Amino acid sequence: MPGVMPTPHSGEPTTGPLTAEELQLAARNHSMPLEALLHDITPPGLHYLLTHFDIPHVDADTWVLKIGGAVQRPLELGGMALRTRPRISVPVTMECAGNGRSLLLPRPLSQPWTLEAVGTAEWSGVPLAYLLTEAGVDPAALEVVFTGIDEGIQSGVRQRYARSLPLAEAMRPDVVLAYRMNGNPLPPQHGYPLRLVVPGWYGMASVKWLQSIEVVTRPFDGFQQSSGYRYQKDADDAGTPVTRIRVRSLMVPPGIPDFFTRRRILPPGPVMLRGRAWSGEGGVEQVEVGIDGEWVAAHLDQPAGAHTWRAWTLPWVADPGEHELACRATDSTGAVQPLEQNWNYQGMGNNAVQRVRVSVE
Amino acid sequence: MPGVMPTPHSGEPTTGPLTAEELQLAARNHSMPLEALLHDITPPGLHYLLTHFDIPHVDADTWVLKIGGAVQRPLELGGMALRTRPRISVPVTMECAGNGRSLLLPRPLSQPWTLEAVGTAEWSGVPLAYLLTEAGVDPAALEVVFTGIDEGIQSGVRQRYARSLPLAEAMRPDVVLAYRMNGNPLPPQHGYPLRLVVPGWYGMASVKWLQSIEVVTRPFDGFQQSSGYRYQKDADDAGTPVTRIRVRSLMVPPGIPDFFTRRRILPPGPVMLRGRAWSGEGGVEQVEVGIDGEWVAAHLDQPAGAHTWRAWTLPWVADPGEHELACRATDSTGAVQPLEQNWNYQGMGNNAVQRVRVSVE
Repeated sequence: MPGVMPTPHSGEPTTGPLTAEELQLAARNHSMPLEALLHDITPPGLHYLLTHFDIPHVDADTWVLKIGGAVQRPLELGGMALRTRPRISVPVTMECAGNGRSLLLPRPLSQPWTLEAVGTAEWSGVPLAYLLTEAGVDPAALEVVFTGIDEGIQSGVRQRYARSLPLAEAMRPDVVLAYRMNGNPLPPQHGYPLRLVVPGWYGMASVKWLQSIEVVTRPFDGFQQSSGYRYQKDADDAGTPVTRIRVRSLMVPPGIPDFFTRRRILPPGPVMLRGRAWSGEGGVEQVEVGIDGEWVAAHLDQPAGAHTWRAWTLPWVADPGEHELACRATDSTGAVQPLEQNWNYQGMGNNAVQRVRVSVE
Repeated sequence: MPGVMPTPHSGEPTTGPLTAEELQLAARNHSMPLEALLHDITPPGLHYLLTHFDIPHVDADTWVLKIGGAVQRPLELGGMALRTRPRISVPVTMECAGNGRSLLLPRPLSQPWTLEAVGTAEWSGVPLAYLLTEAGVDPAALEVVFTGIDEGIQSGVRQRYARSLPLAEAMRPDVVLAYRMNGNPLPPQHGYPLRLVVPGWYGMASVKWLQSIEVVTRPFDGFQQSSGYRYQKDADDAGTPVTRIRVRSLMVPPGIPDFFTRRRILPPGPVMLRGRAWSGEGGVEQVEVGIDGEWVAAHLDQPAGAHTWRAWTLPWVADPGEHELACRATDSTGAVQPLEQNWNYQGMGNNAVQRVRVSVE
């Protein structure tokens, strides 16, 4: 595979300034302003949003989902038929695999996320496992391939956005084919009329605008699987696939901001520091808050679900002067957020700790 | 005023590369991807969003709106009291005054919008004129000042976001104190629990997270009125205030995109070019589409309201090769979008025509 796959990004990582192409992407794609961490469920319109190509304009009246490949009974289901199947609702914290990319040095050229490509929503729809069971998966099945309606070109490869899941992941009871988000119809930009939601995995797995589901007996080698979304050392490294969300915590920047620099100012005295922490590898077990390099354990609330963030709080008495605040989480596998960047060629899974400078005055 | 006001932006306009501060702003603020021009009413979450400071977290149970100043009967109204007053619904196309700023050369340093800071929503709430009449405006009244809960620092000036309207504009029957957006409760980021909506004016007039309305007998000189949101030649020019939306049209880029460059590719043959056009100065009367420099009149649909965009279409038969598409609108005052940039120091009201390069292959 090395050397024959197209590079997933446009050019080598750079130490140079931001490009017009990156600005266009930053303008199109939406992050969640960090003050929205105060909400258990991210208000509609503030959940992060990454669109590889264009948001398709789908006619739900004629749309059908095809389920085929290595199954005994291929299915074609429209929106009404999907609604006659059992429905589940799952709260999920979802994060883009590229979150934190623009903070890497050198900087991989792609969507230049800072820290806010995250959000939590309640997704409702049909359990994927229910429909796969209805279709009857062949014993030789290995993976399930999900293909969206959205089409475009990436690194010279024309494609519809497509990703696969190992069969065991696809059969998890909490993997949803969602047609509702937070109790309302799925918005166009989040995959209307139907999207996949894979709790615990980075967002690239949760294919939007679903067109087909195909059970396959060999590993899927589509662009977004074999070339995009890999942890690589360099362009010639085949790398390893990006899968579950690495442990991360974020803080609501305290005080008030400067409009342009976003520098934070707050008065001396007591302030409650607040944030959220999550991991797709296991529950978050600890959050520590760093105040000028001294780490203190924060209080952790219970999460709303197995794959949602936990709220954390830490009271702090702010002294006049300049301070650096930070937070780092540890999950049940023992994984801890790194203090320094863990660089890779595509800028994936950068869960280095957030640092917030504040002026107390 | 010249020379004594703080500069509204952080440093002089630049021909240099994008800065980290601009990227932070681009990440926080949301634009409307241009394919959403296909919708009459912008789907929730795709309407543009500019937040000067932080999105406040408001407790609607204790929140009250104060109406005072030069009035006979000052009012304090909570959310329930507002809902006992008459309700109107107004569809409005709203655009940020800074839309197009990052395309200016030299580039003013502020939120680096490309072209997509626009959206159309139906806003429902109490007519402002109803409440001003209830309060009884003094004969000496000149302007009405609207102050939000959101607080921060801009150009060294600590402030709550505040703007004024001339009394005659405030008394227009279509100016709304909105508590609903598109039939749903106002989302936090759009001003919950109450915002002003001034149809036809750039978005800075539509103050979010309202805390107070004060009738004044002298011109308001707050930062966002006397220093921000002005058409200035340079830092020493007092300039003129930014008010109504200048005529503009935008096109849905046809074909499919390249992920990184956003370059458009489409097959040869017939394609329907589509877009929207609007003006806050008067109705849009004409849209012309430029194909490789040749201008052709597009078909215009009727608008949904006096202050909403009009859909336009033009069939085109695409020949193989590279093409440049453009669109320009004319409004009922005779104003036409300029072909070249109309530069000003703060990067306001840049309504120069959009140009879309397409590869037909």
